[in-house]
Amino acid sequence: MKKVILMLAAVLTMAACCNKQETATTDPADVVMQNILNRKSVRSYTGDTIPAAVMENILKAAMSAPTGMDVRPWSFVVLTDKSQYETIFAGNFNMKKFMESGAVVVICADTTVTRPPRDNPDGPAVTVDDPIWRDDMGACTENLLLAVEAYGLGACWTACYPFPDTMKPVKEALGLPASVVPYAIVPIGYPSTENTPKDKWDPARVHYDRW
Amino acid sequence: MKKVILMLAAVLTMAACCNKQETATTDPADVVMQNILNRKSVRSYTGDTIPAAVMENILKAAMSAPTGMDVRPWSFVVLTDKSQYETIFAGNFNMKKFMESGAVVVICADTTVTRPPRDNPDGPAVTVDDPIWRDDMGACTENLLLAVEAYGLGACWTACYPFPDTMKPVKEALGLPASVVPYAIVPIGYPSTENTPKDKWDPARVHYDRW
Repeated sequence: MKKVILMLAAVLTMAACCNKQETATTDPADVVMQNILNRKSVRSYTGDTIPAAVMENILKAAMSAPTGMDVRPWSFVVLTDKSQYETIFAGNFNMKKFMESGAVVVICADTTVTRPPRDNPDGPAVTVDDPIWRDDMGACTENLLLAVEAYGLGACWTACYPFPDTMKPVKEALGLPASVVPYAIVPIGYPSTENTPKDKWDPARVHYDRW
Repeated sequence: MKKVILMLAAVLTMAACCNKQETATTDPADVVMQNILNRKSVRSYTGDTIPAAVMENILKAAMSAPTGMDVRPWSFVVLTDKSQYETIFAGNFNMKKFMESGAVVVICADTTVTRPPRDNPDGPAVTVDDPIWRDDMGACTENLLLAVEAYGLGACWTACYPFPDTMKPVKEALGLPASVVPYAIVPIGYPSTENTPKDKWDPARVHYDRW
């Protein structure tokens, strides 16, 4: 009888363990939604280094963005040498967020595509302006920010393109090729403060069948 | 003794149940990463209706995008009346994906912002072109696509802006205000085929400290 009671206790403990897991285990769709809803701009960081494996996953997420005609206009310059920041980010008024970050990712975009002329698919390749590189880059930057959120990090999307005063020092200091623009500057770090996401849901922004 | 064996069987079954849950329960960061890496363009759908609660969450995700100066340029027109599609999407060559979808979301953007003049913060509000609405919209569209993926749905980001032939019939048929453009057209539905994401990871796209 004692053995039975012990076994029963074990079953109950196991059941409690399973229930606890079920509570912690939310549906994957809920996990994804919560991550999207929890993403927010973070501008204060502890300065701690970001592990290389985490940074690689963040960049993998960025490179998984959708891209029209599979052009993949993105490249990334990862910065950690703070002695260069005053020069690179001379066009920015808030230097604190860069100085406190664990790393700054400059998200770059090639604004051109090289392909055969549209009216002669067998002709020699020409380089033309890509009309939708900027849309790919918005998606790419958002993927990066969502991965940042998932790893308990914080970041702040700092617009660079199309502002000449912000772009010029970045482009010069980093030695970007002629057709490549610095699209966005993203300091990333472990948050040093609490940060609450905005609730931006507004059903009035949704129309059905027509505006 | 028989009771003990039965109890032991129950414990083992419970343990197996727990193990199965542990296997299914990945870390939230892994779940988010997998969703980002699994997102892909889907162009064939079953035509099944998308539940209203799922569509609302998809639109909540879209409205959670980052937006410069908190402008929130987005609005959405949700379409399900297929009899209108030939007119609205006259500028598109692939009508099949719209006709097979459960719904089409036309993601719209207000290209202007209304605020006091920069050189006179106390002056009367003026409406000016927003230089970064397009970046917000790329992020907004990606959030929508990631929520679509999370709910087991598929979608295809179909560029509309800045192509006049694609934009004109959409803008006219949906009655969009003068400053609002149809940014992207996104058919959404339950996939009718297997779809494999591309692996776009390319470490050569990552530079350190300078290009």
